[in-house]
Amino acid sequence: MTIRRGATQFSETAPASLRARLATEYATARRASEALAQPLAVDDYGLQAMPEVSPAKWHLAHTTWFFETFLLKPYRTGYQVFNPQFEYLFNSYYNQVGAQFPRPRRGLLSRPTVEEVFQYRAHVDAALAALLADAPEPQWPEIAARVTLGCQHEEQHQELFLTDIKYNLSVNPLQPAYRADLPSSARDGGGASGWIEQPGGIQEIGHDGAGFAFDNEGPRHRVLLPDYALAARLVTNGEYLAFIEAGGYRNPEFWLADGWRVAQECGWQAPLYWQQVDGRWRLFTLAGLRPVNEQEPVCHVSFYEADAYARWAGARLPTETEWETLVRRAAVRGNLRESGYLHPCPARDGSAQWFGDVWEWTASSYAPYPGYRPPAGALGEYNGKFMVNQMVLRGGSCVTPAGHIRSSYRNFFYPADRWQFSGLRLAQDR
Amino acid sequence: MTIRRGATQFSETAPASLRARLATEYATARRASEALAQPLAVDDYGLQAMPEVSPAKWHLAHTTWFFETFLLKPYRTGYQVFNPQFEYLFNSYYNQVGAQFPRPRRGLLSRPTVEEVFQYRAHVDAALAALLADAPEPQWPEIAARVTLGCQHEEQHQELFLTDIKYNLSVNPLQPAYRADLPSSARDGGGASGWIEQPGGIQEIGHDGAGFAFDNEGPRHRVLLPDYALAARLVTNGEYLAFIEAGGYRNPEFWLADGWRVAQECGWQAPLYWQQVDGRWRLFTLAGLRPVNEQEPVCHVSFYEADAYARWAGARLPTETEWETLVRRAAVRGNLRESGYLHPCPARDGSAQWFGDVWEWTASSYAPYPGYRPPAGALGEYNGKFMVNQMVLRGGSCVTPAGHIRSSYRNFFYPADRWQFSGLRLAQDR
Amino acid sequence: MTIRRGATQFSETAPASLRARLATEYATARRASEALAQPLAVDDYGLQAMPEVSPAKWHLAHTTWFFETFLLKPYRTGYQVFNPQFEYLFNSYYNQVGAQFPRPRRGLLSRPTVEEVFQYRAHVDAALAALLADAPEPQWPEIAARVTLGCQHEEQHQELFLTDIKYNLSVNPLQPAYRADLPSSARDGGGASGWIEQPGGIQEIGHDGAGFAFDNEGPRHRVLLPDYALAARLVTNGEYLAFIEAGGYRNPEFWLADGWRVAQECGWQAPLYWQQVDGRWRLFTLAGLRPVNEQEPVCHVSFYEADAYARWAGARLPTETEWETLVRRAAVRGNLRESGYLHPCPARDGSAQWFGDVWEWTASSYAPYPGYRPPAGALGEYNGKFMVNQMVLRGGSCVTPAGHIRSSYRNFFYPADRWQFSGLRLAQDR
Amino acid sequence: MTIRRGATQFSETAPASLRARLATEYATARRASEALAQPLAVDDYGLQAMPEVSPAKWHLAHTTWFFETFLLKPYRTGYQVFNPQFEYLFNSYYNQVGAQFPRPRRGLLSRPTVEEVFQYRAHVDAALAALLADAPEPQWPEIAARVTLGCQHEEQHQELFLTDIKYNLSVNPLQPAYRADLPSSARDGGGASGWIEQPGGIQEIGHDGAGFAFDNEGPRHRVLLPDYALAARLVTNGEYLAFIEAGGYRNPEFWLADGWRVAQECGWQAPLYWQQVDGRWRLFTLAGLRPVNEQEPVCHVSFYEADAYARWAGARLPTETEWETLVRRAAVRGNLRESGYLHPCPARDGSAQWFGDVWEWTASSYAPYPGYRPPAGALGEYNGKFMVNQMVLRGGSCVTPAGHIRSSYRNFFYPADRWQFSGLRLAQDR
Repeated sequence: MTIRRGATQFSETAPASLRARLATEYATARRASEALAQPLAVDDYGLQAMPEVSPAKWHLAHTTWFFETFLLKPYRTGYQVFNPQFEYLFNSYYNQVGAQFPRPRRGLLSRPTVEEVFQYRAHVDAALAALLADAPEPQWPEIAARVTLGCQHEEQHQELFLTDIKYNLSVNPLQPAYRADLPSSARDGGGASGWIEQPGGIQEIGHDGAGFAFDNEGPRHRVLLPDYALAARLVTNGEYLAFIEAGGYRNPEFWLADGWRVAQECGWQAPLYWQQVDGRWRLFTLAGLRPVNEQEPVCHVSFYEADAYARWAGARLPTETEWETLVRRAAVRGNLRESGYLHPCPARDGSAQWFGDVWEWTASSYAPYPGYRPPAGALGEYNGKFMVNQMVLRGGSCVTPAGHIRSSYRNFFYPADRWQFSGLRLAQDR
Repeated sequence: MTIRRGATQFSETAPASLRARLATEYATARRASEALAQPLAVDDYGLQAMPEVSPAKWHLAHTTWFFETFLLKPYRTGYQVFNPQFEYLFNSYYNQVGAQFPRPRRGLLSRPTVEEVFQYRAHVDAALAALLADAPEPQWPEIAARVTLGCQHEEQHQELFLTDIKYNLSVNPLQPAYRADLPSSARDGGGASGWIEQPGGIQEIGHDGAGFAFDNEGPRHRVLLPDYALAARLVTNGEYLAFIEAGGYRNPEFWLADGWRVAQECGWQAPLYWQQVDGRWRLFTLAGLRPVNEQEPVCHVSFYEADAYARWAGARLPTETEWETLVRRAAVRGNLRESGYLHPCPARDGSAQWFGDVWEWTASSYAPYPGYRPPAGALGEYNGKFMVNQMVLRGGSCVTPAGHIRSSYRNFFYPADRWQFSGLRLAQDR
Repeated sequence: MTIRRGATQFSETAPASLRARLATEYATARRASEALAQPLAVDDYGLQAMPEVSPAKWHLAHTTWFFETFLLKPYRTGYQVFNPQFEYLFNSYYNQVGAQFPRPRRGLLSRPTVEEVFQYRAHVDAALAALLADAPEPQWPEIAARVTLGCQHEEQHQELFLTDIKYNLSVNPLQPAYRADLPSSARDGGGASGWIEQPGGIQEIGHDGAGFAFDNEGPRHRVLLPDYALAARLVTNGEYLAFIEAGGYRNPEFWLADGWRVAQECGWQAPLYWQQVDGRWRLFTLAGLRPVNEQEPVCHVSFYEADAYARWAGARLPTETEWETLVRRAAVRGNLRESGYLHPCPARDGSAQWFGDVWEWTASSYAPYPGYRPPAGALGEYNGKFMVNQMVLRGGSCVTPAGHIRSSYRNFFYPADRWQFSGLRLAQDR
Repeated sequence: MTIRRGATQFSETAPASLRARLATEYATARRASEALAQPLAVDDYGLQAMPEVSPAKWHLAHTTWFFETFLLKPYRTGYQVFNPQFEYLFNSYYNQVGAQFPRPRRGLLSRPTVEEVFQYRAHVDAALAALLADAPEPQWPEIAARVTLGCQHEEQHQELFLTDIKYNLSVNPLQPAYRADLPSSARDGGGASGWIEQPGGIQEIGHDGAGFAFDNEGPRHRVLLPDYALAARLVTNGEYLAFIEAGGYRNPEFWLADGWRVAQECGWQAPLYWQQVDGRWRLFTLAGLRPVNEQEPVCHVSFYEADAYARWAGARLPTETEWETLVRRAAVRGNLRESGYLHPCPARDGSAQWFGDVWEWTASSYAPYPGYRPPAGALGEYNGKFMVNQMVLRGGSCVTPAGHIRSSYRNFFYPADRWQFSGLRLAQDR
């Protein structure tokens, strides 16, 4: 993880204002996590309904572990760890830190209790505040960079917190809502259904160095693109229903071989969370069961389904370079977490839905950009070691914090994954 | 399930005193379950660390479901179910009642919350109290019989509650105690190590009709036994350690073929809950980790281990008829739940340890007694349909309620099961 | 394995005639195995369509290994093993001999080739003939006992050879016949459908010491039986079809819980090898596909299906002691391998079908008789270590050699096994 | 599958010479397959030691099925299929043709026998010869294109035939050689160990239209490359041994996360086929066990191992565009199948080992080139539907027919696959 808002900025002497600003950023990120936990019953915090998701409690503890491990232990003289066994329990995947409690068993940890996890958070918060206030100048740049990274990390887990709790609640036949009070995007719409054209040529993609970015967003580099067009909005539930009704899930013709196999083995008939009751489609949301709104972007489809839909529709998925080229000058605006829906919404007139609503599957497998090197040490495990077998998604979703997304942001999941807020946009050669 | 304390007794007109007595029995059973739950954090109630165990919350709800399903729905006019979906969620295995939520997924039900489950209990308790007070005479005998059965059922789940929470907590690297305040059986002892001789001949076994018994304890019938002897006490940890140290877990010679396969696949090296730290054996108990006390009966061994130990020791396991023949006139006395240890204790002088401490594996597979017929209806599924592939255990354990055990009681588990409080006593031909 | 035709007989000086007789027995057994292999193509010998079955080639090699391991290596001075690696490749389950090539992978051994296996057989046959001619007197009793056991062992594998090749060919969509020329049991019949009554009392069962028996058939011992009756013939396909048509495979009411689970997981709808084509039932036989003959005994059902059928029919399965008590004085006569059908036949008038046709599932789990001790050494692994989790079958089948079966013979398989020629006879309490 | 040697050429009237040339090509391809089968015993043809490999017999039948399905059925009037069930048995993955016998069970088909498969081949060969002689002019271009494709397909299966038989024989503890008479590449060498430099810029890759190519090799298109260098030869066993000895298989630091997980689960300690006996490394070859020659290219490593090695060595894997750019003007020359080693050889002086020896894992995931469209119909399933989750390999191996490989050829396997003749070459940024 190279932090690009970086070397220059943080290597100067840290004025008090800078320390204060970072302390505020830290507190903001931490409080946001806790606010997301508020609607839960204590009973809900430990749920882990499949190996890929984590319990709510684990997210709250792991993000705390991150600050303890990468800031307090190395930089805070005399820091007393809250519980030495937490190093093992809440390490996600950093082999250079040490062994990890097996991921599929995270739901079996009733202890520490929720209350103890919140005490853990408070313990670390207090020590981190002191560190930000007292850290000696020579260490400040590295500390500041790592605190910034820790806040970004916390935001990523906020998104996962929502994504995972949705899945964890969904398997309960009572289908409990995370928040029954969420607004409904009753708004009609659907938006322009045309194409945005882009002539080919050499383009430059990757993070340009202003503000924070993850290491995997760089190095910035030139790419050669053909002529192409991207759809002016996301694919909707209504459009996807047409695919279902045309036999999309019964006909291997449109599918990648691996996708067809998974679809058969898992019995896929529709996106995750869709259920047909008395001939009418409903879907499970963070607000509980709702009728399928045909204007909304389709969500919770795997890469395989997105790819099959695109082929059936006579199109294809965009590559990540095509996507970034068109989006890099667009304002970061859309149905992100702060809009409060926590669910995709129909496109408003004029909105291309570049940001928010659903993560857009691309045709690009997740690979290093030319010249990419992961940073040294355990933090080098943050992104680099996952660069195989996964596909890139772009644009953020309705559960992504608004300050967290940008045009160069590369999310990545396995092609069979469906529990993310993932949808698609069509592309075509020109 | 035939309830033998039965037809005669309950078919008389039910005097108020009888109704009151049953109401007291009911309340006693129900409060006992709740008392067992008291040491738990809310976080603990949902744990299910393997498919064979159930969450604490599930036990509390399922026993309530039993009364609702078999008493309130059929007999209580105008009864309003607490939640119609609970019929599905908390049905254990009664196909004639309906479909069941998959057992391995019980740990995924964060809702109903613990609080709601206690509300469910209160709702059913109130209705059942009213039923006991008001039930019309003609229905009384059947109602009384079913309430008695429900109380016995609740007691069985109290034992499972403790057995399961022990397992569920054990997988947590923090190794939390269920109750750190449990007394330690520091007492030395070990008891007589001789044999109790029994000449062969025709004996009668099975429940004799006085007091409650489960249907699988009858019909009472005659059996022909050879001359034999049973050990005067249970096998101890010290004796079992000698088996371990003699290579018992490395040498297939003493093992049944199926047992050896399981032992290899699961990597068994010692009883469940034993761990060797710095060359010293410790075991996980409901009070947390403790050193292995060599005088205590060995516990948490599978049938396969019990059988291999016996063969290594030049003996064998008793059959259930051999056991019952010797025990049927013994008083029900021993280290049962009420003694408060919740852990096996060394034999006191003169104690044969027939009851309590550990369930004793027998050489008998669980099969119907001659002439056995399960009762009609869903309650016929209580015991009969499990009469294959399991082995009989006798005598109760340190977590069995004292009023629940008797010499004709037949417990049954699969030969690979180790999470019950199961141990062994040796037998020999004479 | 204690060989009861035994000590006395073989401890005398072995006259040449005794040696000659044993040499003939040996040659007969060996040639019979080879005759069974004759209809196979070389391509067929290596098939292993599930872990429980063995390739034809493996049976031919393993029986040879048995003589090499237990006779030639210990008793034949200067014996040169055919190939030292065969000790590992063709050891079935004798831990005291050494490690074993994993059973589920036996089908992956294209070498030794079929031709080499026949050379191996010839090599061992020659050495064994020499041993029988030359063995010094003091060793003769043990050698004679082991050769006898080896011949019985060879006969057991002849039955498995046919049972396994049937399964192995059945999975091929071409459904090739093992021998298309087998006679069809066109004969009608069905036989008496009444009951054979037996009053209760003390009986004696187990092998009585005359002639060969396996160790698990003894010790002979007394048992106490209730009044009971056994059906006068086997359950037929026609009777079983009524069970199917009455929803026997859709209704858990008649099933043991473990059986119902297996039936659902495996999708059982009928006995193994049955298939419904255009509304008509056909079954796969060693002669290929044939219509279901309603008069034939039902075959290839598991214990679970046999038990469910019996319960549905208002009866139960016999215990093995009930069966042996009624059969022990019956002549060994019936549709055994030598009758040449290799398929069950309708009962002739007057035939109780005690022997042959199908192995009869009993209600008895496979356990040691009182006082049973396995012999010392590796041969003690022959039978004893399997005495758990399996059910006893009695009477032999249409693929059992006529000289191999007797009333005390105890076969044993897991309750879910269906590829044996297994059927059932009803029993009732009286 | 678009056949690029194509439209123009074949749309002309087919002169007799063209027909004759194609008939010769066909016969050559077919006889080559049969020659490869020659060293096998009949016993070997049915082996399938893991789901990913196919039996030798299946390859011989499937390639025949290809001609029958795509040539004879549509184009040969009055053609009688050899056996209608073969359409199902020998269809590999063409959903548009129909259902397929399950791939993991191909080893269970003892019928058709080897002899019958050769009869099937002769039957199809005769009909195809007639088709080539008689086909009406209007159909000729399509027929010629498909016969060419069928021959290329046959060549691909020739390589798989060798790759698969190596794996299938390797699991036998007897470790039989496919051909004990193969020459040993005793030759020392190793070749230049320097770098070949390539300045960045726009390049053109993909098949240029001359001669046959598979559809996935096009469209030819421009790419923008950075400055880079490729190693002047393949990585050797000696170099890879240094990685092993430096703890490469014990240290997750160098590994992709997915790769490390697979390596742990499968217990990888060295390349496939390596075994350490008495401290010395040996490897299984098509000629049986041989000592590891440190000069030979390392072979039978997965993408994960190749990638980890490269990272450990301070380098990376080449992208497929980097590879093709450097190789496209090189002559197709190297240790290919015709050299007769069937095993990688040390680099000769001056040889860059671009072609032959081992397939070179690239850093490129297998994806469609810009503008790629699979052909219509079942033949469109040939390549396109596999374009996810796999990595591209380049250059051919010691078991690739010399006429089959070219610089634009894209092979693809899953990153965990090791049974292909796969190795690596290093790359570096400049």
